[in-house]
Amino acid sequence: MPRIVDHGERRTELAEAVWRVILRDGVRATSIRTVAAEAGRSAGSLRHYFATHGELLTFAMGLVEDRVRERVSRVDINAPPVDVALRYCVEVLPLDDQRRAEAEVWFALSASGLSDPRLGEIRDRADQGMYELCRGLLEGMQRSGAYRHGTVDEVEVERLWSLLDGLSLHLLFAPRGVPVVVAEDVLRRYFDEVLVTPG
Amino acid sequence: MPRIVDHGERRTELAEAVWRVILRDGVRATSIRTVAAEAGRSAGSLRHYFATHGELLTFAMGLVEDRVRERVSRVDINAPPVDVALRYCVEVLPLDDQRRAEAEVWFALSASGLSDPRLGEIRDRADQGMYELCRGLLEGMQRSGAYRHGTVDEVEVERLWSLLDGLSLHLLFAPRGVPVVVAEDVLRRYFDEVLVTPG
Repeated sequence: MPRIVDHGERRTELAEAVWRVILRDGVRATSIRTVAAEAGRSAGSLRHYFATHGELLTFAMGLVEDRVRERVSRVDINAPPVDVALRYCVEVLPLDDQRRAEAEVWFALSASGLSDPRLGEIRDRADQGMYELCRGLLEGMQRSGAYRHGTVDEVEVERLWSLLDGLSLHLLFAPRGVPVVVAEDVLRRYFDEVLVTPG
Repeated sequence: MPRIVDHGERRTELAEAVWRVILRDGVRATSIRTVAAEAGRSAGSLRHYFATHGELLTFAMGLVEDRVRERVSRVDINAPPVDVALRYCVEVLPLDDQRRAEAEVWFALSASGLSDPRLGEIRDRADQGMYELCRGLLEGMQRSGAYRHGTVDEVEVERLWSLLDGLSLHLLFAPRGVPVVVAEDVLRRYFDEVLVTPG
């Protein structure tokens, strides 16, 4: 009997081959041909799952988004608000090899999104999600009376979100990398300043 | 008499053609051929200035760095420390069309630098420069007695730098863009918190 492989499972496997090509050789090196070779398949069989190179990249980028959402959804929201906030923030930062690889792929495809509207759309949607996450965290603190400055405003949401994205960039890129412990201390100092009762 | 064009001037002109191709079609679309076409020259004449595609990208990325350094060097350092700090920060953010274009090119080539060590080197050098700039700003405040928290440490330098890089990303990318006025307010709020006498 032939092995029956789930269509979605095979697509995920191929998207992970896209990730590996990007991590090793960059987005420029991705094509139906190079990804098929990386996955140990023929270009023809790959086309059965993805009609075009663009579709392949779009799916590979969407897969990063799914993985991050999945991790974030597992955060225990019944802990004290500061702990919840720190846990959420830590989940979206590239603090281990797996998350680092995902962030590198995300970053490379985001940059391609400047000239490819389909990738740009995925990035915009994820950005919106991160913005909402930051707003949700700060408003949760406000509701529990822990937020120092009265009402959470657009400036504060942007400030937390910028901090997170800047830290992500530096964990990926900065010369020799920002030590993970420094990144966590930056977040802790931020929350110490905006909270009435530092965690 | 034939017009004598400075070698450096011609290289700059060609690098700007690289920028335009990147802004319109992405890094993937750059090649000796497409850049020559963009600049209205032959591939042969372009090779007179840049032997390889890699050399062309490296020079185009270095040109962004030069432009930013040039702007930063013009900041009047005799103003009060908070004003100086804000001016420096504003100079490195993509707050107008010209700086936005430069930042887009920078970001696209930075992402390529993940798989191209020559571009990675330029990014590392610029990152080091930004880190030193942030440290210099905070230490300047400390020397003038305006810094609230005693001694400037690694965590604070990383915090300011992350904030700046996160804001840059969002000014470029966020859905519909972060309003410039919000970006400036984020910086102002940051300085209000770390300074004894808010500007």
